[in-house]
Amino acid sequence: MDQKRVAIIGLGLIGGSLGLALKKASSDYYIVGSDHNQQHQKEALELGLVDECSNDSETIRQCDIIFLAIPVDAIIKTLNGFDNIAPHTTIIDLGSTKHRISTSIKDTLRKNFVAAHPMAGTEKFGPSAAFDTLYNDQIVVLCDLERSGEHQVKVAKEIFNRIGMNIVEMESKAHDIHAAYISHMPHALSYALANAVLAQEDPKRILTLASGGFKSMTRIAKSSANMWEDIFRQNKDNLLDSIEHFDKELHYCKDLIEDEKWGELNQWMQKANILHKIF
Amino acid sequence: MDQKRVAIIGLGLIGGSLGLALKKASSDYYIVGSDHNQQHQKEALELGLVDECSNDSETIRQCDIIFLAIPVDAIIKTLNGFDNIAPHTTIIDLGSTKHRISTSIKDTLRKNFVAAHPMAGTEKFGPSAAFDTLYNDQIVVLCDLERSGEHQVKVAKEIFNRIGMNIVEMESKAHDIHAAYISHMPHALSYALANAVLAQEDPKRILTLASGGFKSMTRIAKSSANMWEDIFRQNKDNLLDSIEHFDKELHYCKDLIEDEKWGELNQWMQKANILHKIF
Repeated sequence: MDQKRVAIIGLGLIGGSLGLALKKASSDYYIVGSDHNQQHQKEALELGLVDECSNDSETIRQCDIIFLAIPVDAIIKTLNGFDNIAPHTTIIDLGSTKHRISTSIKDTLRKNFVAAHPMAGTEKFGPSAAFDTLYNDQIVVLCDLERSGEHQVKVAKEIFNRIGMNIVEMESKAHDIHAAYISHMPHALSYALANAVLAQEDPKRILTLASGGFKSMTRIAKSSANMWEDIFRQNKDNLLDSIEHFDKELHYCKDLIEDEKWGELNQWMQKANILHKIF
Repeated sequence: MDQKRVAIIGLGLIGGSLGLALKKASSDYYIVGSDHNQQHQKEALELGLVDECSNDSETIRQCDIIFLAIPVDAIIKTLNGFDNIAPHTTIIDLGSTKHRISTSIKDTLRKNFVAAHPMAGTEKFGPSAAFDTLYNDQIVVLCDLERSGEHQVKVAKEIFNRIGMNIVEMESKAHDIHAAYISHMPHALSYALANAVLAQEDPKRILTLASGGFKSMTRIAKSSANMWEDIFRQNKDNLLDSIEHFDKELHYCKDLIEDEKWGELNQWMQKANILHKIF
């Protein structure tokens, strides 16, 4: 099999880890890294995340597969900037929202494009956060595949399988609703929890007592504000819905405590315990 | 040095891990485990968490140090049941609330007693959840020490130091306010998040997409409902206050999203990022 040229635009945690995972999975891939940030390019080369770096649009255009591992607003902008893409080229985005991306892409490019969301990440960012097992045995959601070309679907499935990911297919609309509950709204909670403590009179004294529980609950509050601003904007309506549902549960809990309905509170907590059985 | 007899009442994660840590730290301690649950006693012996098991009050009364590793309501009940405790005996509770425990203990026993809260735990419970490094390099809060006997304070500090804990002293009132923010309210959020997802139409489909972030945010929603019912009851007012402060932050976030004030939202998230600098 001929070596395939793979461009990765964006060399942070997501793009960098993808480079590492592809290089580990097979020598079939030659990785061209691209990033507006020169320092990121330098680091990515030093860390061996990619084989070469280039911001030359012609070099990128000629790759067999082009991954977009950049914030979700930048994905739309970059996609609409692509011209003269060959029919066999596969463009895959890795953004956390899918509906607006999947529907805003121009018709001439739609068959080239596969909308993907790997359900993997950490609160860290930049090339130095990359590691080769990030995607291992994790879920990747592929959306609206009926709008992608047959060849492109095959290429995308093959490459995600090779880095050990488990594929789930879903409409982009359903994805965005689910992602609001499983990822976007939890990020809003984590930011709110961190800010609630930091707003207290002596946060340092409170934080002295932080142990596993608090650290788990605020880990993702360390995530990039720029990246999450874009996600919150693109998934605004679903996010607001999911916050409202969370709010209802929290107020139910609060009311039970206020009214000292301890038996009902216990049952409500036992209901949450069901997660035990799922993971 | 003579071997010291240490009773541990309650052989779950907290008591069991304490037994393991003490046995690992030194051969100076002989551990008597006690638990109403016969199966827990059997498991604790099989797992080597304790040297012997006994529910005989005389055997326990004659130990040099008595740890209470049981739910916070049971701590108060058990403390008030103790009679004829020798002046040199040290009784230490390990509950997650401190003010009601510290103040409800009878005068004849107050000098024997040290109120402690080790800031360590996991969502798991029972003897099989115990592990010997749970307390290693973690914080233990000792409260209202001026009300404990000098000998008892010395004994408590020594034993927590020997299992590698870092001691912080605090008034029980301040402890309960801080613990509400750092532990009790985050548990309420985690339960509410789990229930918000479980209440949706197809929770299994949503949970297919769960990755690190969601798992972090709902880990402590697996915690024992019985244990947390007691904690929420004992720290009711502080817990309600902290939920209200959280609520304010979440609604601020929600309003910014609704009003599309993205710049302010970004700044609010950047403020939360400050946690980076603390741990």
